[in-house]
Amino acid sequence: MTAEIISVGDELLIGQVINTNQAYIAEKLNGVGVFVDRMTTVGDNEADILKAFQEALKNHDVVTVTGGLGPTHDDVTRSAVCKFFAADLEMDQEALENVKRLFGRRNVPVTKVNEDQALVPKGCTVIQNRFGTAPGFLFQRDGKSFIVMPGVPFEMKGMMEQFVVPYFAKKVKGSVIKHRTLKATGIGESMLAGQIGDVSALFEPDSGTTLAFLPSPMGVRLRITVRGKAAGEAEAQIRLVEERIRAKAGKYIYGTEDEELEHVIGKLLTERKLTLAIAESCTGGLIADRITDVPGSSNYFERSMILYTNESKMAETGVPAAFLEKFGAVSPEVAEAMASGVRSKSNADIGISTTGIAGPSGGSDEKPVGLVWIGYADRRETIALRFSFGDERRRVKERAAQAALELLRRKLLKME
Amino acid sequence: MTAEIISVGDELLIGQVINTNQAYIAEKLNGVGVFVDRMTTVGDNEADILKAFQEALKNHDVVTVTGGLGPTHDDVTRSAVCKFFAADLEMDQEALENVKRLFGRRNVPVTKVNEDQALVPKGCTVIQNRFGTAPGFLFQRDGKSFIVMPGVPFEMKGMMEQFVVPYFAKKVKGSVIKHRTLKATGIGESMLAGQIGDVSALFEPDSGTTLAFLPSPMGVRLRITVRGKAAGEAEAQIRLVEERIRAKAGKYIYGTEDEELEHVIGKLLTERKLTLAIAESCTGGLIADRITDVPGSSNYFERSMILYTNESKMAETGVPAAFLEKFGAVSPEVAEAMASGVRSKSNADIGISTTGIAGPSGGSDEKPVGLVWIGYADRRETIALRFSFGDERRRVKERAAQAALELLRRKLLKME
Repeated sequence: MTAEIISVGDELLIGQVINTNQAYIAEKLNGVGVFVDRMTTVGDNEADILKAFQEALKNHDVVTVTGGLGPTHDDVTRSAVCKFFAADLEMDQEALENVKRLFGRRNVPVTKVNEDQALVPKGCTVIQNRFGTAPGFLFQRDGKSFIVMPGVPFEMKGMMEQFVVPYFAKKVKGSVIKHRTLKATGIGESMLAGQIGDVSALFEPDSGTTLAFLPSPMGVRLRITVRGKAAGEAEAQIRLVEERIRAKAGKYIYGTEDEELEHVIGKLLTERKLTLAIAESCTGGLIADRITDVPGSSNYFERSMILYTNESKMAETGVPAAFLEKFGAVSPEVAEAMASGVRSKSNADIGISTTGIAGPSGGSDEKPVGLVWIGYADRRETIALRFSFGDERRRVKERAAQAALELLRRKLLKME
Repeated sequence: MTAEIISVGDELLIGQVINTNQAYIAEKLNGVGVFVDRMTTVGDNEADILKAFQEALKNHDVVTVTGGLGPTHDDVTRSAVCKFFAADLEMDQEALENVKRLFGRRNVPVTKVNEDQALVPKGCTVIQNRFGTAPGFLFQRDGKSFIVMPGVPFEMKGMMEQFVVPYFAKKVKGSVIKHRTLKATGIGESMLAGQIGDVSALFEPDSGTTLAFLPSPMGVRLRITVRGKAAGEAEAQIRLVEERIRAKAGKYIYGTEDEELEHVIGKLLTERKLTLAIAESCTGGLIADRITDVPGSSNYFERSMILYTNESKMAETGVPAAFLEKFGAVSPEVAEAMASGVRSKSNADIGISTTGIAGPSGGSDEKPVGLVWIGYADRRETIALRFSFGDERRRVKERAAQAALELLRRKLLKME
């Protein structure tokens, strides 16, 4: 069963909004055996929308459409859908109740424009919207499924979870596509490829298996894909390939799928009953932001200091003034003093720190933009490592935060 | 002149990667008068790629293609391009020098696979890649332009800036499309629409002007578009509409285009020679992360404390133990004590603070998940405001950070 994902919206065509819906829908559909082989984006323009509908329904078993269902004048998807399926609008009582409930909760009176959001094309199955006023629609024609949802991501996600995924999970039988993603960091793409070596030693060429390298500034993802097998067989094949990769490059692999370093570290700190304190300079709060994205992080995250000025570094983590004068704020001595200072002050088990030059200014020949020292301190040892992260401010912050978390992971696992 | 943007990559179709290239390319092309009216994504599959090339070149003046130019076995775009234009490969000396330069810099030997990256289709104009090994290609056919670039975002961006944008800036004459985006926060979409009132009072229906409302959890963007006029005329029309909108809803508008609250606040703090200190609980460092994304923020950002535990709130910002016992950590009293505490401790001019329940656990009937108090303190006053931000952890953090920055902006502008 193949699918096309259609996104509607002028804001996408002018590049004002990054399309996150496509990736979300694709992942969910693939997960229930609906293979996405095309994605299309068109503007808020009836002719272009109708043309996209026609081509998509001709070539695919499943079509999803998002966007253009709102109450304002620039939303034309619903009327295009009516034209495409030659359907009139009718009021859906459940959708109307939903509109009233949402407005009632905010103590805002319901206008005619709001009520009209509950109008749906006759003959469709209505997909109710828990998080917004515009309902979605499902049309079934000649064994094909045509699904329309709002473009607001969390409204669309609610419909996917509650309606679309269960609908296809019931409908799709037989062979599946399975993916497994291993996430590596602290190593470049070609070095990692070298560690893994000959791909043909990982799986047979005709096994329906592929391996993709997906590099980013934060690391490399390895995606194993198995197609056209029964679910159990595909999973066994994936496990085998994963084991072979881990045997060769396991130490760089910190997680799988959507797992981030902060989740892995959260588990390790929880298991070991350890607490963490952080002193950030150049990362400016990004490490703490990532650590606290994890539910339950309050159990192991003690506190963090973001110390941009020399005064704050001295006052909060006891960095000696002599270090700042002699070595400068961006130095291993200061990174170590910050890590051990924040640790002992907060009585946490572990302290980590960053100090560097995020740019664009502030660099010198000796200490160029992108230079970052990362400090680590526990009750036994204090160390600092040197990194060089390029010259784009946000990327320096992101890569430094990633490296600091990876250093913490390796220390927690007692890796060298 | 119209364009289609084609993205190639299985990782996009399975939803593993969010396509940020489309929005970037669209914005740049629109900026030089090339109007994107379709975006298409296909997998690493020659037949699908060729079909997409054919349709795109038939219907549009400009086609851009990204992805699938890498050195690994799953990259098939270059061979598809050769087939499509019936071109053989030949070695490009400049691209080869570039490959050697990049590997030389990393002290890594150049292999045959790496050298082969410098092979290009005969008859194309080669677009050199400053940041990676795969060159891009431009084909000109019957007045149409067909451009192929790598999918790695910063490599593609380098080519867009150095080659593609200047190429079209020279090529495109006459009428343009101009956009202006006003960014509002602290008000919902329908309330904002109510403030602005009848859209037909803003511009004539036949003026080629449109206004779109683009809501997100962080605020509402208002996009004014003027099409089919000379540049000067379009700009005058946009200024007029902007003035009319600002007259009605100006206080909610914090910035334009890509401007974020942290940029606006950075300017205001710099102009007023004021310094800022922050004490974050539920936002976990996100406010500081945003503040420090701005180059030069070290001039006004003094320090930030991320205080997850009661102990750290007391120790670092002097919150009285009696407040925590009597009112709880999530209370106006604690928010105020944190804001004024961090301010006086760091001797900054202004302190802001957050304390709330980011969830998913920790809520109660009286203090549900999503409840956040935001504190503000300067040398004259200390206040706290109450907010309710829903039940999704990351969204609570984001909306709380946005609200804290907006409170700071309004205080700096002495708005109520």
